[in-house]
Formats: sequence, C-alpha cells, structure tokens
Amino acid sequence: MTDTTLDTAPVQEALYTEVQQFYARHMQLLDSGRADEWAQTFTEDGEFAPEHRPEPVVGRSALAQAVRSTHEALVAAGEVRRHWHGMLAVEAAADGSLHVRCYALIIGTLVGGEPEVKMSCVCEDVLVREAGELKVSRRRVTKDGVSTPE
Amino acid sequence: MTDTTLDTAPVQEALYTEVQQFYARHMQLLDSGRADEWAQTFTEDGEFAPEHRPEPVVGRSALAQAVRSTHEALVAAGEVRRHWHGMLAVEAAADGSLHVRCYALIIGTLVGGEPEVKMSCVCEDVLVREAGELKVSRRRVTKDGVSTPE
Amino acid sequence: MTDTTLDTAPVQEALYTEVQQFYARHMQLLDSGRADEWAQTFTEDGEFAPEHRPEPVVGRSALAQAVRSTHEALVAAGEVRRHWHGMLAVEAAADGSLHVRCYALIIGTLVGGEPEVKMSCVCEDVLVREAGELKVSRRRVTKDGVSTPE
Repeated sequence: MTDTTLDTAPVQEALYTEVQQFYARHMQLLDSGRADEWAQTFTEDGEFAPEHRPEPVVGRSALAQAVRSTHEALVAAGEVRRHWHGMLAVEAAADGSLHVRCYALIIGTLVGGEPEVKMSCVCEDVLVREAGELKVSRRRVTKDGVSTPE
Repeated sequence: MTDTTLDTAPVQEALYTEVQQFYARHMQLLDSGRADEWAQTFTEDGEFAPEHRPEPVVGRSALAQAVRSTHEALVAAGEVRRHWHGMLAVEAAADGSLHVRCYALIIGTLVGGEPEVKMSCVCEDVLVREAGELKVSRRRVTKDGVSTPE
Repeated sequence: MTDTTLDTAPVQEALYTEVQQFYARHMQLLDSGRADEWAQTFTEDGEFAPEHRPEPVVGRSALAQAVRSTHEALVAAGEVRRHWHGMLAVEAAADGSLHVRCYALIIGTLVGGEPEVKMSCVCEDVLVREAGELKVSRRRVTKDGVSTPE
C-alpha cells in the first residue's frame, strides 16, 4: 500500500508495537495542546502536508505554532478533539525509515454536546529514528470527502 | 469469546501484531477497491457470511466480484468507506488456525460531506496460514441493529 | 502522559500486545453483558471512577451489579453498545504495575437504527498482575464534553 518504487517489507512485532506506542503518545500530546512536546515528535525539518490545505507546514517551530493556534481556537469554542490512528500498515525501507499508511479518525465533542466524527483521513508517514526515538519526517494526509473517489 | 468447544489459547505477541498488520493491509485493499488483491487475502474457498445477507459469498472469484460491484456503486455515489477492525481477541486453536473475534466500524464519507458511522459489527474470522501468509478461511459478520440485543 | 511523579517507562512489545488482548476481551465481556466474568478482570477491590458520576464503583460485586443493571436497561431499550479502547500509552511503574492512558469510544446502535458515537472518553487505568493475569485495579474515566477544555 506504500510507495511501490521502494524496497520495503512489513516490520516485525517489536517495531510494530513501538510505532503504535509512538502514535498513542504523539496524538495524546496533540489533543492536549502540548504543542512543543508534540513538535519534538517530528524531525527538526519535519513536514506535515494535508492535501486539503494550500501549503505544507515545515519545521518544529511552525508545527508547534500551528498546533498552538488550533488548540486555542478549539478551547475558545469549547471543543475537545481526539485523534485516533488505526489500521497501521508499517513497512521498513532499505534505508531504515518506516513507511506507514493508516487511517485517522478525529472525534470532536463540544462542552455539553455529543461526540461527532469530524474527519476521516488517510495518513501516510515516513518515520525515522533519531537518538533512539522515532520521529515523523514527513506526513501526508488525505481527507475523505475532499476529492471524488476512484 | 470464541467457540468454547475448541481448545484455544490467546496468541503470543509476534502473532498478534502479525494479525493486526494483516487486517490493516486487508482493509486498505478493500477500501481502495483492489478487489483481486483483497480476494487473495482469503483462501481459495474462503467464505464471507454476513448474517444480514441471505447467502454467504464463497470463493475468491465471487469475493472479488462482490467487492468490485460494491466499490463501483460507492464511486458512482461519490462515497469513500474506511473499515476499522479493532478490539481483536485472537486465539490459536490446536490445528494451528487462529480464531479472531473483533469489532468492525465502517466510516463513510460522501464527496463534499461529513464522515458518518455507517455500520458497527462484530466480526468472527478463522485465519489459516498458506505458504507463510495468513488468509481468511471463514468470516462471519453480525451487524449491530439487525437483531434484538440479548 | 501518565502521573509524572512516578518513575515509569514505556513497556516492551510482549507486554503491549498483552494489554491490547486484555482490553479486547475485557470490552467484549462488557458489551456482551457477561457481568461476572467482566468483574473478574478487576482486582477484588477494583475501583471504577467515572468523573461524571458522583461516586466510584468499588469491588467486583458492585462492578458486576453495575454492568448487570446497565446491560438490562440497554436490552430493554433495544440498544447494543461497543466499547473501543485505542491509542494506548502504556508505561510500567517501578512497582510492576502498568499505567495506561488511552481513548475510549462508545458506539451504540438501536435495533433498526443507525450506529451513533455515544461517548468519547479518556481512560486512565492502573493494571496489576494477579496469578499471571492482568487485572484493572483502578480506572479513572473522563468523558469529553463534561468539563470545559483547557
């Protein structure tokens, strides 16, 4: 399901659970508005490219700023969001990077309101290891409902 | 939670993550309409038995055809679907087959629309290994909301 | 994301998948109304503390009774519920207990109806091992939408 020009292979169990743990912490930081800690889960020049936005967000400083703004707007609106990452297909490339294709579901709840599914996406990440820790070096997000399906 | 007449035991970590990876790829193929590759994740005589349909679908050719029809109808309607498999209880039987009982959630998004939870199901699979790869040999799906709960 | 006064470390793969399997069975027992078996997945003095309820439920007998009442009410209403636990951040404390912070999603479907997201929560568990098996010794649940987000 990942880039077929790459020589990749499904990862073994230890790596797979490490990726699951990584995303759990990564998304909990995001949803808690812990912007700087979240940005540290990207490489210094990490890139976040949502297809439905005009420009990618590049670098930890810009990534943290983006989360800070979004989180402030959500708090002002009285909304909490939960990002679920699931159905992880994880492949290791020859250069040691991990190529992940997975689904993302964003649940939003307004204070006093009912939970709603705000977004369903496909997320394609390249993860690399720096000083022993996984980091997102590139993220591409495709939001369902934006393009006509094929 | 699986058939109590079988002598089963919860599987160890390597197998558990292999099953998770298997379902990730399996569902991504399904949602991408890659019907033939998806059918290859069943045994040749694999059986898909949704309780809310009159007849099970049996064999790779029929399985691929069913997905092809469904995918074409979804594309025509401008809808993308994402199948989430979760809460996997995986047990190994004495004959080496794996018995999985899990939940399935289907999220559908129309082009220009909001994501909706289309279906919540319980999925019971028997997985077997062929030439080193896991395959679904039998799937039974119970859709929530069809029968009166007990 | 867990109590920072504790000396904890992310758990290794075998333990992580064991926790995933544990929750799969735990939630399937709950949703099937198997109240006594579910209560056995807590310690004898296990505590369930939903922040949105006035009092915690303490001890297997009270836990089983609570599930029995809830399940009877759901059956009477013709509703089936599915609890999804995901985005598990699992850390081991020095005393051997596991501290889990994760998200919970509750999907409810009325007979003849469509599935609905009934609740989105954060669940914080302390798991301990008794006679080789994981048990919940303390659960704290925070329901989204109850408090104003920060």
